[in-house]
Amino acid sequence: MTESDPDPRILDLFFSPRRVALIGLSRAAVGAPVSILTTLKEFGYQGRITVINPNIAPSEEYEAYASLDEVPEAVDLAVISVPREGVLDVLKDCARNAIRAVIVVTQGFADADDTGKKLQEDMLAFARENGIRILGPNTIGVANAFSSFTSSFIETHNETFPVGLVSQSGLFMMGHNIVNNEPAGFCMAVDLGNASDIGLDEVLAYYEGVDGVRVIQCHLEGIERGAAFVETAARVSRTKPIVLLKAGRTEAGQAAVASHSGAVAGENEVYRAAFRKAGIVTADNAEQLRVLSKAFATYAAPKGRRVAVMSFSGGGAILAIDAIEAAALTLASLSEATKAELRDLFPSWIAVDNPLDVWIPIARDLHSAFPRILEATLRDEGVDAVICIYCSYTLPKYEAYDSSVHIRDIARAYPGKPVLCWTYGMDIAGFTRKVEQDGAAMVFPSLDDAAGTLAKLAAYGEFRERSSAPAAIPEANLGASTVASILGRARNGGASYLFTEGLEILEAYGMNVAAWSVASSELELISEAAGLTYPLCLKAVSQDIVHKSDSGGIALGIIDQEELVLAYRRLLAEVRERAPQARVSAVLVQEMAPKGKELMIGAKRDPSFGPCLIVGAGGIYTEILGDYAFRLAPVTEAEARDMIAELAFSKILAGARGEPACHQRSIVEALLKVSQLICDHPEIREIDLNPLIANECGAVIVDSRIIL
Amino acid sequence: MTESDPDPRILDLFFSPRRVALIGLSRAAVGAPVSILTTLKEFGYQGRITVINPNIAPSEEYEAYASLDEVPEAVDLAVISVPREGVLDVLKDCARNAIRAVIVVTQGFADADDTGKKLQEDMLAFARENGIRILGPNTIGVANAFSSFTSSFIETHNETFPVGLVSQSGLFMMGHNIVNNEPAGFCMAVDLGNASDIGLDEVLAYYEGVDGVRVIQCHLEGIERGAAFVETAARVSRTKPIVLLKAGRTEAGQAAVASHSGAVAGENEVYRAAFRKAGIVTADNAEQLRVLSKAFATYAAPKGRRVAVMSFSGGGAILAIDAIEAAALTLASLSEATKAELRDLFPSWIAVDNPLDVWIPIARDLHSAFPRILEATLRDEGVDAVICIYCSYTLPKYEAYDSSVHIRDIARAYPGKPVLCWTYGMDIAGFTRKVEQDGAAMVFPSLDDAAGTLAKLAAYGEFRERSSAPAAIPEANLGASTVASILGRARNGGASYLFTEGLEILEAYGMNVAAWSVASSELELISEAAGLTYPLCLKAVSQDIVHKSDSGGIALGIIDQEELVLAYRRLLAEVRERAPQARVSAVLVQEMAPKGKELMIGAKRDPSFGPCLIVGAGGIYTEILGDYAFRLAPVTEAEARDMIAELAFSKILAGARGEPACHQRSIVEALLKVSQLICDHPEIREIDLNPLIANECGAVIVDSRIIL
Repeated sequence: MTESDPDPRILDLFFSPRRVALIGLSRAAVGAPVSILTTLKEFGYQGRITVINPNIAPSEEYEAYASLDEVPEAVDLAVISVPREGVLDVLKDCARNAIRAVIVVTQGFADADDTGKKLQEDMLAFARENGIRILGPNTIGVANAFSSFTSSFIETHNETFPVGLVSQSGLFMMGHNIVNNEPAGFCMAVDLGNASDIGLDEVLAYYEGVDGVRVIQCHLEGIERGAAFVETAARVSRTKPIVLLKAGRTEAGQAAVASHSGAVAGENEVYRAAFRKAGIVTADNAEQLRVLSKAFATYAAPKGRRVAVMSFSGGGAILAIDAIEAAALTLASLSEATKAELRDLFPSWIAVDNPLDVWIPIARDLHSAFPRILEATLRDEGVDAVICIYCSYTLPKYEAYDSSVHIRDIARAYPGKPVLCWTYGMDIAGFTRKVEQDGAAMVFPSLDDAAGTLAKLAAYGEFRERSSAPAAIPEANLGASTVASILGRARNGGASYLFTEGLEILEAYGMNVAAWSVASSELELISEAAGLTYPLCLKAVSQDIVHKSDSGGIALGIIDQEELVLAYRRLLAEVRERAPQARVSAVLVQEMAPKGKELMIGAKRDPSFGPCLIVGAGGIYTEILGDYAFRLAPVTEAEARDMIAELAFSKILAGARGEPACHQRSIVEALLKVSQLICDHPEIREIDLNPLIANECGAVIVDSRIIL
Repeated sequence: MTESDPDPRILDLFFSPRRVALIGLSRAAVGAPVSILTTLKEFGYQGRITVINPNIAPSEEYEAYASLDEVPEAVDLAVISVPREGVLDVLKDCARNAIRAVIVVTQGFADADDTGKKLQEDMLAFARENGIRILGPNTIGVANAFSSFTSSFIETHNETFPVGLVSQSGLFMMGHNIVNNEPAGFCMAVDLGNASDIGLDEVLAYYEGVDGVRVIQCHLEGIERGAAFVETAARVSRTKPIVLLKAGRTEAGQAAVASHSGAVAGENEVYRAAFRKAGIVTADNAEQLRVLSKAFATYAAPKGRRVAVMSFSGGGAILAIDAIEAAALTLASLSEATKAELRDLFPSWIAVDNPLDVWIPIARDLHSAFPRILEATLRDEGVDAVICIYCSYTLPKYEAYDSSVHIRDIARAYPGKPVLCWTYGMDIAGFTRKVEQDGAAMVFPSLDDAAGTLAKLAAYGEFRERSSAPAAIPEANLGASTVASILGRARNGGASYLFTEGLEILEAYGMNVAAWSVASSELELISEAAGLTYPLCLKAVSQDIVHKSDSGGIALGIIDQEELVLAYRRLLAEVRERAPQARVSAVLVQEMAPKGKELMIGAKRDPSFGPCLIVGAGGIYTEILGDYAFRLAPVTEAEARDMIAELAFSKILAGARGEPACHQRSIVEALLKVSQLICDHPEIREIDLNPLIANECGAVIVDSRIIL
């Protein structure tokens, strides 16, 4: 939304205008197959169509005027497709005629060159000054089956399938209607184009209030207002699943996004964290986007991940097991009662168990055996969902083998347990149509699609169950004011990089830092060290030294007082020699860390999405093997646990090769506190705990860096 | 093939019998929709059909006899579907009547219980004794469009699409014919069922000789004769691509395979290595198997991986770039000449470059602009393939926007450069049919499918270009006889585990082992150590000690002679105390390894596939993070390089964080030599070089283990 936070119902003018003015239409558009006049007619739009073009004569279907000023009644929406240089002038006409909603179809703005970028800025500035909202530019606009209105010159479906589409490309508005997966459309759609004014979050909030939209399908190239998007999406997706395809997921793709829609594509890692935070269901490609949207409109989320397989083919059942395992679902264990109930249907040499190989029972009598098996399986309390593999015997001659009516009816009777189908054979399209007829079950293109979709349904169910409130950390709250004063002090001192103050901040939030003290003389050092346990280390405290080891400003493994004094003198001498300009205000004396596993915890502030949290294995592998987990902050305790579990390194933390397990609770707490710290204090730009040493007793911070 | 290596043309009897006898058919099968009599009729089989059942009367379509003995003429093939207990008796009838080819449809053999397993063994033994070949049991048999014969009771396609199918499940014989991807069938098909006799390698060799089969599609659950399969497949796939789906790719799936087809599913890692060795194109699921089979029948392998994108939608182009990057293809750079040639078609503010966003040129005049752009792109020498995204405007009213004829014609004119299509919109099925009509181009379900398929086409092209001969290693050949005599000595000594002999063997193959010697007394030790450079280490030489460090049989980092003597005495004392029963014959004195990166190289002998080679990062991460590469031996130099490149650790070997790169040539040589060593000497069961220390100068073996 814009800063002025306008009425979200402004989008009604776009989706359901009573009168629409078409500006920039050529005479060739009249009667052409690819023309808004044609699509409006086919949609059956009942509002008034006003063409602004002195060379087009009015017809039964539309009025025509030479200019907007001549239109006698109020226009709700203007659809502009004049060349880019002329758009601003048309906007002026709109303003004069009190038009508040404008779709700019014209290409060649921020999506093209610098001239286009400037034109877009000027247009937007004018619109803001004059209370005009713009969809686009570079868009085919909207389609709405409820008002039978579309601004698209490309033919789109007009059906009330409960999916609301919001896209950054007109491509998705064309729809994708293959016979084996019909219908796969939408009831409402917006192409955001360059999204210069109306953006994704505004459309999400709008769809939230539309009863006919149950699932939101989203194609996204880039978001500038990341935090607002996450806030809106996290709210909306608690009631309506948002299924999303992020384009530009590779580096080359990201670069191309900039030239296509003029959007800034941020780092995909931050996007992934944002989608996760908002409970968004992500798709890897357009085909999956379509399948997932339809699946979320078809199925409720299952209660768990235990899947039964019912297959007419043993080979198919094995493929299903592979797909189930690959999607991190589990093969359900059937209860003894279920097995006993079905025993008589099978020959003695077939074990009645999951997967159920049903060829012999159904070959004997499909219409008795099939529903009995499917229902018994769905009634089993150990089963959350069923993958059903059946041959596509729906041609009339196969009446005795047609299971589709049973699948349909039984799926409708067990709405909490998805029945996901896959088929092979002669009439896949017909089988699909029959199974999907009542919208209670689906036939998937592959078993991997079926299992992958089920996993996403289950994850979405878990998201809805989860509390979204981050864990409260009492010590941290106590520490917030202390930290505010430390930060105030640092700010006044002009510091942008905190060292000992950083350790104080961490301690103020109740974090466990290896015991330390500061000394500004040899005598003070000796007295401070007396309160610490050897071995110790020394680090120069200086705003002028960032890389301590390069400048000799560090000494490790000091085992007694004698060595301590020598190390101190050597350290000062070395710094003086290697970094003569550096002013060493004091030394930090600190206990050496105990033995343990090295981790790093970091936090940073993303310009679009705000605070982010990272945890990784310490050492060379974090960076090179990419073994880290990334989230938007704040994180809940469950999220913090997830982050650690996501690391390959977690196997080592859990105690590989007979080693004791590290104290996970301490690592989780450190994560939660860093999360809260960066959220509490917007002055902090970056926090880096590296390393955090974890062992079976706890976790200790050895070194840290806080950047303001 | 069986040990007797029979005439591969025996399969002609299965695929093209002049007379087939059906044994076990019930009267209910007559006229039923799911019946071999019905499918044979619909296939238009022209041979003679003989039903063996006293209760079935002959008809116009088939003869009928009470028993096989009554059939007046020779029967080429018997199709048996009597209950499992009766199969052996029918086989006896077949033997009496000189029937050499038998399909056993009946289930319940090794796929079921112990009784079934025994029945299968008895049946097979009888068949072998009597010169009968068996397909199955637990199979629906064969289909062959060239002879219009099928043994399947399930309706299958009868079309000459140039794919030969071999499957371990009847599922795949049903075919999968969705409208947007028609036809996706096969001209010949075999369901191997339990594969008790006729196996995969035999069918591959048969298809190799069938002109009508250009691509072999394979569904596999398990192979017992792995080495024979690899040999045959590697030969066949040089002329005919083999596209393969391995079921049981997960642990639960593997377990299910055993009960489905009675096949032993080996480790998937070995399978993957075998498929790679044989140049097999692997699919992840049934849908991908179908798409890939069709693609290999449609396209030749491209010369490289440089892809141009031509899209009517900018948003679609970005999705294509993502798919191209994800598939490890590259975005082609268009030549200046190509860009200049197309410049006038585009408005000035659109950069003419890859991806080509063609909406404006085609909206102006599709039939002039579209072919010009596609041809110019294909003519560009920097382009190996084109991904073409176009709206499915094939309905009659869209005649002015229908690009399908251009795609079809131009794809046919540039057979070396695949044109892969993706579409969106109202008539996907129609667009697909029109584009695919001449078999020169395809429309893919998703851009990821298109790019993924192209990557596999390119990889297959590279496989065909590659020499299959392993690199010759002169030193190794020289060393083979030395090694044979060392092995002979060890065998005579009853050793199953080689230590110092292992080092000798490695050196005989020209491998670089850290300098070492053996001493059996203190004096000898001092004199041997004089020829080595400190620091040194000591290891107890004893057939009774496997884990040296547990028994105190090892001493590291010895810096001078004084320490050497002390270490020697301490070592002997420690072993005496900790492993009093161990007989220490001598000590190994060895130079400590230089600083470097730790690797492990291993080789083992798989019972089905033979010698395998592995390389991994040393240390805890190899095992826990699974950072290793695995191949069947022998490997070529290129394969050895690939193995190293496959490791995440290769980034560290290449010199991360400013460190010098390790000497890769030395690591490659060590791999090649271990590969040759295990291939040359079948007595060796396992070789383990751990660690091999690599640095910028070379690679040194520190420790090794050879198991016989």
